[in-house]
Order: sequence, then structure tokens, then C-alpha cells
Amino acid sequence: MTDAVSLITAKRDGRRLADDDIRWLFDAYATGEVADEQMSALLMAIFFRGLDRAELRMWTAAMIASGDRLDLSSLRRPTVDKHSTGGVGDKVSLILAPLVASCGAAVPQLSGRGLGYTGGTLDKLESIPGFRAALSPEEIVAVLASAGCVICAAGSGLAPADRRLYALRDVTGTVESIPLISSSIMSKKIAEGTGALVLDVKVGSGAFMKSLDRARELAQTMVALGEEHRVRTRALLTPMDTPLGRAVGNAVEVEESVAALRGEGPEDLMDVTLALARAMLDLTGIDADPAAAIADGRALAAYRTMIRAQGGDPDAPLPQAAHCRPALPAPATGWLTRLDALAVGTAAWRLGAGRARKEDAVSAAAGIICLAKPGDHVREGQPLLELRADDEDRFAAALGALAGAVGVSEHEPPPPAPAVIEVIG
Amino acid sequence: MTDAVSLITAKRDGRRLADDDIRWLFDAYATGEVADEQMSALLMAIFFRGLDRAELRMWTAAMIASGDRLDLSSLRRPTVDKHSTGGVGDKVSLILAPLVASCGAAVPQLSGRGLGYTGGTLDKLESIPGFRAALSPEEIVAVLASAGCVICAAGSGLAPADRRLYALRDVTGTVESIPLISSSIMSKKIAEGTGALVLDVKVGSGAFMKSLDRARELAQTMVALGEEHRVRTRALLTPMDTPLGRAVGNAVEVEESVAALRGEGPEDLMDVTLALARAMLDLTGIDADPAAAIADGRALAAYRTMIRAQGGDPDAPLPQAAHCRPALPAPATGWLTRLDALAVGTAAWRLGAGRARKEDAVSAAAGIICLAKPGDHVREGQPLLELRADDEDRFAAALGALAGAVGVSEHEPPPPAPAVIEVIG
Repeated sequence: MTDAVSLITAKRDGRRLADDDIRWLFDAYATGEVADEQMSALLMAIFFRGLDRAELRMWTAAMIASGDRLDLSSLRRPTVDKHSTGGVGDKVSLILAPLVASCGAAVPQLSGRGLGYTGGTLDKLESIPGFRAALSPEEIVAVLASAGCVICAAGSGLAPADRRLYALRDVTGTVESIPLISSSIMSKKIAEGTGALVLDVKVGSGAFMKSLDRARELAQTMVALGEEHRVRTRALLTPMDTPLGRAVGNAVEVEESVAALRGEGPEDLMDVTLALARAMLDLTGIDADPAAAIADGRALAAYRTMIRAQGGDPDAPLPQAAHCRPALPAPATGWLTRLDALAVGTAAWRLGAGRARKEDAVSAAAGIICLAKPGDHVREGQPLLELRADDEDRFAAALGALAGAVGVSEHEPPPPAPAVIEVIG
Repeated sequence: MTDAVSLITAKRDGRRLADDDIRWLFDAYATGEVADEQMSALLMAIFFRGLDRAELRMWTAAMIASGDRLDLSSLRRPTVDKHSTGGVGDKVSLILAPLVASCGAAVPQLSGRGLGYTGGTLDKLESIPGFRAALSPEEIVAVLASAGCVICAAGSGLAPADRRLYALRDVTGTVESIPLISSSIMSKKIAEGTGALVLDVKVGSGAFMKSLDRARELAQTMVALGEEHRVRTRALLTPMDTPLGRAVGNAVEVEESVAALRGEGPEDLMDVTLALARAMLDLTGIDADPAAAIADGRALAAYRTMIRAQGGDPDAPLPQAAHCRPALPAPATGWLTRLDALAVGTAAWRLGAGRARKEDAVSAAAGIICLAKPGDHVREGQPLLELRADDEDRFAAALGALAGAVGVSEHEPPPPAPAVIEVIG
């Protein structure tokens, strides 16, 4: 027998929690015997003291055990998913899921909505008329069986303890903890029933992890956690100092994703998407060339099948913004060395593409098109961005976020950024 | 403008809270804008990061400002109070308040009830038939005017934010934080309107502070806080490795206190009581000898006046336990070197003298009499304690707490313990 105060003070004082303690904690939290104010104190103690590998394994297992697990065995195809820690212009999921599906794997991509300056995959897809993100477990399996991939919301039945804990962490300053982030991500991915998982851990100004060391620690922690729960897991550390691709927003990112599936995507976006696709195929043992699946149209066909299977019309025109405005004149003639991801993401958010609180709606049409990217040669005064909004009043606030967002070198182009910094697992 | 998450993450990351932040926090906590789960996360962050002197001053001021302050100016006598961090057999308040009052000061002793193994002053006094601990502010001033002293509960109007915070800390593992302890104690003492304050900071196995360093840090913090709020404050560090005096419980401690006021108290109890009395008189500038006030009966008279003014009958027989049992035979013949305060306190608690939860009742008659104290010569097999309980079934659990509680040296007596280890302020 234990009690909440004993567990909190044990962790606070640097002692470890036994498996039974963690099991008891989650049971008692579910019944209300452990109150939110006790859990938040424990989460803050974990922020300071961490969880060791065995504690983290049990913590994650308890979150998985709090709900259902999807059973994807009826698909008779290897399953593999991807999770990104979130970046600006990161529309990779929209391309990657149908791409990998078209190579023979099943991709159950359970996603989230955006909060703050990084967009959410579901927000982007919901700009497609008719698209439904909320599917029942049976619908998920049916879409997977027909299209080979599905991109939908994680239902309330998967890891409900994580849902409650995440809401609590959001209001109690306990988000930024590697064990808590890892267990939150991995509990959902393990509960969704995928056999393999590739993690895209973003590093840089526009990423949750600003430093390579922290990103590496997060990646290692999640890879270990996946393997311990028998999910083959690999992490790619990828740069997020500048937006990925040229479009930042919702409908604009869908457009860019479709272009990418047609083989017309910008180079940085294609490089990271193909690297992730190869890692996913490698983990499932499928010997296929994803670039060929784009070139021959199979990937685009899988995308259209998936959108239709989820109620969307892939041929319907997407919402267009009422107001467009060129912005951010280049301060000099030369090579663009820097276009800051956090600044562009924040500006897009203020234009209406993101939400400040989870109950807010997002604008489908608002966003930003990057007219130039680092490495491009620009002329003084040339606008570097095009801003789009439903409401002109939003431009001023967006421009405010962009101060100091660019760098231009009159002498030489910046060194090219690698698509992948490091692979773990 | 600020918000709860910004304050929590600032403190979590080691940044300081501005005066306005702290003011906002307490206002928003009072209105419900800041929720308990946010406050408990902040309290845990404070456990790890501390509060600097300016933060602590403001934190304490905000707790005082959350309620009323008593106005004792009508008394036209210097006011001085004492606070003890709590120990086993610590009945000093019952003797000290009338003693110092009989020397010419007014002593507004607002006290608490006990929780866990240390008894509460009010629980002890409530073993006197008719005694009332709950007084209105007007009654407090009236008892002070007639008796020179009052020992009563701190009403709900004084520092209500502390009351709420303390209840939260109690269930969230955030009690053991020096800034939080200091602000909790000092906000109540400053709000009660005393002009001077002597702190009895106990150190040792039976004290909240087990180490001299931590006790000294707590004392220094509280002395600084008192002085900053214009309360002349001094702290005495006193030992708490063995029970103070011979009686541990409620009615038994009242009996021992009355004996002390008659000049028949045990030496260790008298030494610490007189040291505290001299410090209190010194802070108020009264030149009087407290030992003389005991010898000539003035102190006992003040005690009887106070008890009567609070509805009690000082001549009524006190509750007697239904069952008494000698216990803890001396393991050898020699000098008793150790009689552990924590063990004796825990045993008395299990006999019924203390409460496990704040809603529990205590037994007036239950307790322990120490038949020998460290320094006494004992014979092998001689019982060292007498246990008292209303219910025989309680003896077994009490005996369980006493394993390993004593030490006997066959060769030499232990060095005498000082009454006061150190004076701060």
C-alpha cells in the first residue's frame, strides 16, 4: 500500500518509483483518489528528478494500459508510422503516409491538432472539403485496408491517461520534460498498434528542442522506449531553423504536399520525406524505392484514395485567403542566409493558421508562402514572404513577429543544410 | 499582465518572481483564476528553486494581505509572542505565556492543533474542562487585557491564503521547503499583530528539522522576514533528541505545566522555558526576572486568570486514562544515554494523544510519562516509560514504535545537553 504524498516525496527526494507504485498511481488517478493537484506536483518533481529507464517503461505501460490498443493484425501488411516533434511548414505526413503505403506498408498515422506556432497535420487536412479526421477504430482499419494509409485523430480510447496528463502539463508548466514528452508520444504510438515507428526529431529555432544535445536525448529515450515495447523504432534528427518547403499554413501546405506527390516538391521537403520513407521501409523489411513511387504516380494515387476514403474530395478547390500581401523586403542584395522558422511560424499563427487555445478554430486559408529560402540569391527590397489572411487586421501583428527574422550575406551563400543531422536506432 | 504558466515556468527555470507577479498570483488564486493544480506545481518548483529574500518578503506580505491583521495597540503594553517549530513533550507555551505576561508584557499566543507525532498546544489546553480555543478578535483583545496573555486558535480571518496553501502543501509533498515554512509561520505571526517574536527552532530526531544546518537556515530566514516586517524577531535553536520534560500527551502535559508554574518543573523544561522568557522580555525592553515570577506565584496566577477568561476551570480534575502500563524495560544497568523523541512521540500518537488526519479527534488522557530521562542511572529491567490509553488495544502499536528507542551506557553518563544550542537575531 502506498499513498500519493509518499510517491511525490519519494520522487522529489530523488528516490525511484517501483512498478507497483506507478501502477497504483495511474489506477488511483483514474478513480480520483489521486487529485490533479497531487499529480501536477509529482509531474513537477519528475521535471526536476527525471524517470530512469525502468520507471519510464512502467510509466508508459501504465498509460497504454489505461485504454484500448488497436489491433491491426487483420491487415496482413507490415505496419509502420512516423511521428514528428513538430516544425514550421512540416507537412511531411501528408506526403509520407501515402508514399510509404504505395510501397507496400500500412501506415496508421494517428495525428494531433496544432497548438501554438507549429501547425497540426489534422488542421491541414481539414482544409480539404469533406475530410473527416474523427474515425472509429473500425473505420481506421477499413481505410487502412483500402488505401494502405490513414491520417486521423487518436480516438479518446487510446491512452486516455496521456490525454488527461497532457492537459494538466499544459497548464502547470510541466511540458518540457524528456521522460514526460517521450512517454506521451510513445504511449499513443504503441497503443495505435504499429509494428514499427520512425521519429522525426526536429532541432533548431523552430523546433521544440532548440539544442542538438536535448534532441538527441529525447530521440534516444523514445527509441529505447519503443524497443522495450517491441515496436521497431528509429529516430532521425532533422534541422528546423527555417520553414520546411515554401508553404506554412493549412490549405497552402496541402497544395504543396500534392505538388510534392506529383514530383514537384521543393528540394528540402523532398529530401527529408524520402529519408523518412526509406527508414520506414527499411524497418518493415520492404525493398522498394520511394522516389520511383512518386515518379510513377502510385504515391499520389494512394493519397487520393485515402482522402476519398475519409470523406474528402481531392479535386475540390481549397479555401483561398481574402487578402494577400507581399512582406519582408530583403535588407540587401546577396544570398539569403537565414529565414527564421520560429518567426515565420509565429507570423503564420498570428495570421490565423494556428490556435492559441485548444478550443480555438483555425483559418484554412491563412498562412505564408516563402518567396525565397536560405541559399537563394535575393535583391535588396525584394519581398521574401507572401502573407495570406481572411482579415486584413491580422497583418500588423504578423509583421511584428518577423522583425530580425532574416539574414543576407553579400559575399557568399550559406553552407547547405543537411536533410538529416543524425540517425539513432 | 502575466499568467500562471509563465510564473510556474519562470520559477521552474530558476528565474525570480517580481513583486507584481506574486501579488497577481495571490489575487488570481483567491478568485480561482489560478487553480490548485497550478499552485501545487509552483510550490514544487519553489521546493527545488527556493525564493530569494525579496521574493520571500513579498510572498509573505501577500499572504498577510489576504486577510485581517489584529490591532493590539489598545493594550498599551509591549506585545511579544513565541513560536515553536514543534517537538515531543513541548508544553512550553502553556508555561511561557502566563510567565511573560506576569512580568509585564502582553502575549498573544495564536496556536495550532497537532498533526502527526508532535502535539498541539490547543489540544493540550482543551483537556481542561470548559476551555475554549476559538475566540473572536474582540475576545482575544479582552482576554489579553484581563490576563495579559491568551492562547487560542488563529481565526480564519488571519492569513487565509496561508491556510489554503498549507492544506495544499500537506497533500502535495511540498511541506519541507524553508521559504514555504518560513512564510507560513511568519505570515500568521505578523498578522496577529505582535510587536516582537521569539522563535524556538527545534533540532534533532523529534524535530521537523533533523540537522543543525537546516534549522539554522530556517531560523535565519524567519528572523530576516520578521525584521523586514518590523517585528523584532530572535530565534533560539534548542535540542529535540529526547522528549522535553517527562510528560508527553495532552492532560499529562497540562499537569506538568502547572507543576512547572509552581516551581516544580523538570530541569530541562525549566531551562528552555526561562531562556525563551528572557529573550522575550529582552525584545520588549522589560527588565524582569522570570524565575522570580514563578517563585512568587505571579506566573501561576496569570495562568489561572487566562484559563478562566477562556472558559476553563483551572481547579477541575483532568481526564485520567482508563489503562496505564509500564513499558520499555532498561536493557542494562547504567546511565540512560538516549530516549528517542521521535519514537516516544510516535508511541504517544499511537496511544491516541495525536491525530493522523486533521479531522480526527484526540484523546485528552492518552500519553506517556517518561520514568527516566537521559543522564539518569537505571537498573536493568526497570521500566523507562508509563503508557496511558483509553483503550488497551492501542498498547501493542505504541510498543512497536519504541523498538531501538533507548541507549544505556554501563561506563559513563552522557554529556549534558545544552538548553539552547545557538541564538540567532
